[in-house]
Amino acid sequence: MIDLEKHNRMANAIRFLAADAVEAAKSGHPGLPMGAADIATVLFTQVMHYDPTRPDWPDRDRFILSAGHGSMLLYAVHYLLGSEDFTLDQLKKFRQIGALTAGHPEFGHGAGIETTTGPLGQGLANAVGMAISERHLRETFGDALTDHYTYVLAGDGCLMEGISQEAISLAGHLKLDRLIVIWDDNGISIDGKVSLTDSTNQLERFEASGWATVAIDGHDPAAIAAALVKARENDRPTLIAAKTTIGFGAPNKAGSEKVHGSPLGAEELAATRKALGWTHEAFEVPSDILDAWRIAGLRSGQARKEWEKRLAAADTELRSEFERRLRGDLPAGFADAMTKLKKQIAQDKPTMATRKASEYVLGTITKVVPETIGGSADLTGSNNTKTADTAPITPDDFTGRYLHWGIREHGMAAAMNGMALHGGAIPYSGTFLVFSDYARPAIRLAALMRQRVIHVMTHDSIGLGEDGPTHQPVEHYAALRAIPNLDFYRPADVTETLECWQLALESSETPSVLALTRQNLPPVRTSFETENLSARGAYVVAGGDEAPEVTIFASGSEVEIALKARETLEAAGTATRVVSVPCMERFERQSADYRADIAGSAKVKVAIEAGIRMGWDAIIGSDGIFVGMTGFGASGPYQELYRHFGITPEAVVAAVNARL
Amino acid sequence: MIDLEKHNRMANAIRFLAADAVEAAKSGHPGLPMGAADIATVLFTQVMHYDPTRPDWPDRDRFILSAGHGSMLLYAVHYLLGSEDFTLDQLKKFRQIGALTAGHPEFGHGAGIETTTGPLGQGLANAVGMAISERHLRETFGDALTDHYTYVLAGDGCLMEGISQEAISLAGHLKLDRLIVIWDDNGISIDGKVSLTDSTNQLERFEASGWATVAIDGHDPAAIAAALVKARENDRPTLIAAKTTIGFGAPNKAGSEKVHGSPLGAEELAATRKALGWTHEAFEVPSDILDAWRIAGLRSGQARKEWEKRLAAADTELRSEFERRLRGDLPAGFADAMTKLKKQIAQDKPTMATRKASEYVLGTITKVVPETIGGSADLTGSNNTKTADTAPITPDDFTGRYLHWGIREHGMAAAMNGMALHGGAIPYSGTFLVFSDYARPAIRLAALMRQRVIHVMTHDSIGLGEDGPTHQPVEHYAALRAIPNLDFYRPADVTETLECWQLALESSETPSVLALTRQNLPPVRTSFETENLSARGAYVVAGGDEAPEVTIFASGSEVEIALKARETLEAAGTATRVVSVPCMERFERQSADYRADIAGSAKVKVAIEAGIRMGWDAIIGSDGIFVGMTGFGASGPYQELYRHFGITPEAVVAAVNARL
Repeated sequence: MIDLEKHNRMANAIRFLAADAVEAAKSGHPGLPMGAADIATVLFTQVMHYDPTRPDWPDRDRFILSAGHGSMLLYAVHYLLGSEDFTLDQLKKFRQIGALTAGHPEFGHGAGIETTTGPLGQGLANAVGMAISERHLRETFGDALTDHYTYVLAGDGCLMEGISQEAISLAGHLKLDRLIVIWDDNGISIDGKVSLTDSTNQLERFEASGWATVAIDGHDPAAIAAALVKARENDRPTLIAAKTTIGFGAPNKAGSEKVHGSPLGAEELAATRKALGWTHEAFEVPSDILDAWRIAGLRSGQARKEWEKRLAAADTELRSEFERRLRGDLPAGFADAMTKLKKQIAQDKPTMATRKASEYVLGTITKVVPETIGGSADLTGSNNTKTADTAPITPDDFTGRYLHWGIREHGMAAAMNGMALHGGAIPYSGTFLVFSDYARPAIRLAALMRQRVIHVMTHDSIGLGEDGPTHQPVEHYAALRAIPNLDFYRPADVTETLECWQLALESSETPSVLALTRQNLPPVRTSFETENLSARGAYVVAGGDEAPEVTIFASGSEVEIALKARETLEAAGTATRVVSVPCMERFERQSADYRADIAGSAKVKVAIEAGIRMGWDAIIGSDGIFVGMTGFGASGPYQELYRHFGITPEAVVAAVNARL
Repeated sequence: MIDLEKHNRMANAIRFLAADAVEAAKSGHPGLPMGAADIATVLFTQVMHYDPTRPDWPDRDRFILSAGHGSMLLYAVHYLLGSEDFTLDQLKKFRQIGALTAGHPEFGHGAGIETTTGPLGQGLANAVGMAISERHLRETFGDALTDHYTYVLAGDGCLMEGISQEAISLAGHLKLDRLIVIWDDNGISIDGKVSLTDSTNQLERFEASGWATVAIDGHDPAAIAAALVKARENDRPTLIAAKTTIGFGAPNKAGSEKVHGSPLGAEELAATRKALGWTHEAFEVPSDILDAWRIAGLRSGQARKEWEKRLAAADTELRSEFERRLRGDLPAGFADAMTKLKKQIAQDKPTMATRKASEYVLGTITKVVPETIGGSADLTGSNNTKTADTAPITPDDFTGRYLHWGIREHGMAAAMNGMALHGGAIPYSGTFLVFSDYARPAIRLAALMRQRVIHVMTHDSIGLGEDGPTHQPVEHYAALRAIPNLDFYRPADVTETLECWQLALESSETPSVLALTRQNLPPVRTSFETENLSARGAYVVAGGDEAPEVTIFASGSEVEIALKARETLEAAGTATRVVSVPCMERFERQSADYRADIAGSAKVKVAIEAGIRMGWDAIIGSDGIFVGMTGFGASGPYQELYRHFGITPEAVVAAVNARL
């Protein structure tokens, strides 16, 4: 039997901590925490396995507040449970600079925030990735070590965003039975009633994608508990549609959009206190209720200790590998394997499309780095992301390491964020570079959260040819380079592809995009170098020995053009240096001296890239010569397109000579 | 009674034109045209109202090939119908530079291509916008002038992309009964069977959002015709799930992913000819079949003539207004109204957030430009996009001019493209600038298609404050400026907001983004100027009279900071010029002389913008001083954030003095 009065007071503690913090901050979202307080109380005090004394316990249940604007729900719950991060002091500093209690939950700000949410729908898709990682680890290492659930609280906005469909249909297809989504069905969005903009029967929609569903009263603790217990037993993911009143308890504003995103105001807050019989001051939680929360917070301590025993008792090698993967350390043999392969490449000097080069390098990577989980958004044969070591993950077998993501670029990228956040996996994707736009909101969040996710994006220029401008990235180099803490790589040959892959894998706090060609490229590097020359972002490929009159910078497929232009210029007596720029961001992070040395004393600086000029002025100056695109591409055979758009050695030579 | 043999031969004409063209191009997608040939034959020869002799007939039915990779279906159909654009010669030049027959259908390449498709799901969402425009015009001007249907052919990929859910749920909610989607249910995607990646029951999914649905054999012409006729009678949008065999007729490759995106090969193509009894050479259509198509093509001529009569008979004023809207000309009184308002603003000198300024200006615009249809993705009160003249469009009444789009940024932007493409509407949206990422694939297509759609994107910097980095655009200025043929405006005060709005409305072939502040800004312009000073992208705000030592460029909310920095610098005897840059792209399009004049002779050039530096080097040089952001923002009150990130007049003065 649930002690209803006690439950209500425990839930009211969330409500008033949230409302008081929003009031103090003079901004924020009280409506969701007040509406979902009953759900959170039942979930955290009766159902979830979570130990506030060891919040990094790898086998804890995950809770994702996909409706991130309700951040105070999370902060209040973790304070009540006894979090060391979310103290009362932090709650009082809600939405202030430097506080852990940011406007939206920011991953890294404190234990209990499993992912950064706010942009709607992302958390739901992250959770799909977490459930994938959980099941992959469970089936790979056994359920003694991994055996937990992923809970999501999603709002109407999460379900209206398109990304939700990608997440829902994927989760249903994969039968992610440990994924439980609670929909905070309060019927209110910012503009008013949800019925103003949507008439979808969400239960039927989820059922259409293979989910179990149930509708409950989201203020009835017994119903919440029963639904959660039942959901854990389902053989498929579960949607719990919990009917709630937004801003529950506020006598004049509850149930309306007025309580969504603004403080209640002193008067309404006082009236709410009266209506709910809460006689305590702002930020004050009566000791019996705080005790009840704290005791509930210790519920999972025993389970956690039992898990620790199982881990200690596990096979030494298994345990060590499990722990290594969770730490995120690469395997001991990784660097050597890469060096060996690099020597082989230097010897073979293959001419190859960099997407093929990536496949070749992945052959070694997926062999020696078993935590890599690859995939493609339905372009496996084009992205070349599948290797002999990566069997598919299927609804019935998660020991595989390859995800056929379907035509779901956004869901893929967001789920990959969840996989990385969960720990134990290094996810890499595949799609065309132009479709980075579809995945962009999730790529941004990977960068903000400092997650190691790697996007393989092929067909990286007009070089893809006949598919035309809808498929030809032009502005995407600049647009991706613009995202802070994202490294955009565009290797020029097989060796650089290997180096960029190695850098991406070693960047444990930075996501990477590898932009790769459809078309063949000759080797730019023909001798073996121990050093990873791509690590500094740009290096001299040719003409480094003398003072250049002209320095040509280029990336990817255009390095070949730069080298050919150099031949002509040198033949005419113009000392010309060629610099390959596999990663502009890394180059920008180098010292001014290094950057100046690379450019040399050249009077004329040139950049060649089959994208727009934006970004290159920082390297060649606004008076530098840029040979690239000025607008959208066109449909045609790729060699003809390069000629059509004037991205040729001849055009470079002509522009240089005109300047000299 | 359908003459089955004749139907089959008519459909086979599509199949072989497509397969032959792909074979000749050595690349392309034969699978869809071969699989959907029966559907297209029935639709275009029996159901659709379309007149190839007047393909711009405004009341024609629209056909959207959302699965754009099947472009040869469209080119073949229009050739067969007698298109002047898609001649046999063009079909033979499929996927060659300069041909109308690009790899994917490109809007503007020829009549019959109603929108550019290729990026999956976009066409479906465009069609929702077209159906919105149709119904809005029908209810506004009467069904004598507008009374047509929108047909979509969508593939599995379209339905898997998240944008499809936004489109489907919106269309269902709005009861767009003139929207008929035919799902080419061939069960195959690039990686193999759709069942590899998805288990969604699409009929149930559509029904959950209020659609009528029916499943048919997509190779049975009688069933196709019956379903289409029935669909036209439904009081809601209809999904026709048409089971087809991809690459129908190819004896060894049909029904598999092998026929999706590669030529059949000479052998298989010959075998297909044999299997389907097609004895004709490549690109040869027997005259009886070509005649049958051409005669069918003339079916709608009578309906078109009757429409012309109705138009001629319509009330003169109504007709003239209808025709003006379809031409896309702005009303005669527009410019004067803007000038009058501009004078008023110069007199009032209001201090106002630019989002409020936009609302103020929209008050006049929506009054004098009745074809504007506004909206917001559930941020109406924040985006300030609704005015007294824009009543909501509801499922039961489309005479309104405001769309509550719901939390569907991507669907909104794509539907707006469809509204603009349809003609008769100038759509403008509302969301936060950071969520331009969600809408980005559709914004790109607006630019590629040269459509007048206007995105109002508020909360345009860290100035939004407490919502924190997930909601603070930092890289978005650069990322949007990077898109070719998109003008990104960031006005600094009410007057500039008016000017930018005017430019956006007058740009009939360029989409615009208006980035607007949450926070108040003082007037930068205090006197009335007849000329639209924002038209050249940048202009001198202060210090234009003398040769400057320092020129400070800034946009939006940072112009105020520039002006304050100037005061301090001038007080210390440093001649300082301030340049407002409301539109960097427009400035880049000016002559080198104009650009040089604006900068003046300043030794020190500075740019201030609350985003990243990318893009500014072209104006201030790589040695210019940039005061802005270098990474993600933070949660806190906005004035504190500006100080925290060092975007202040003091920081600017210090940096300038250090340089001088």
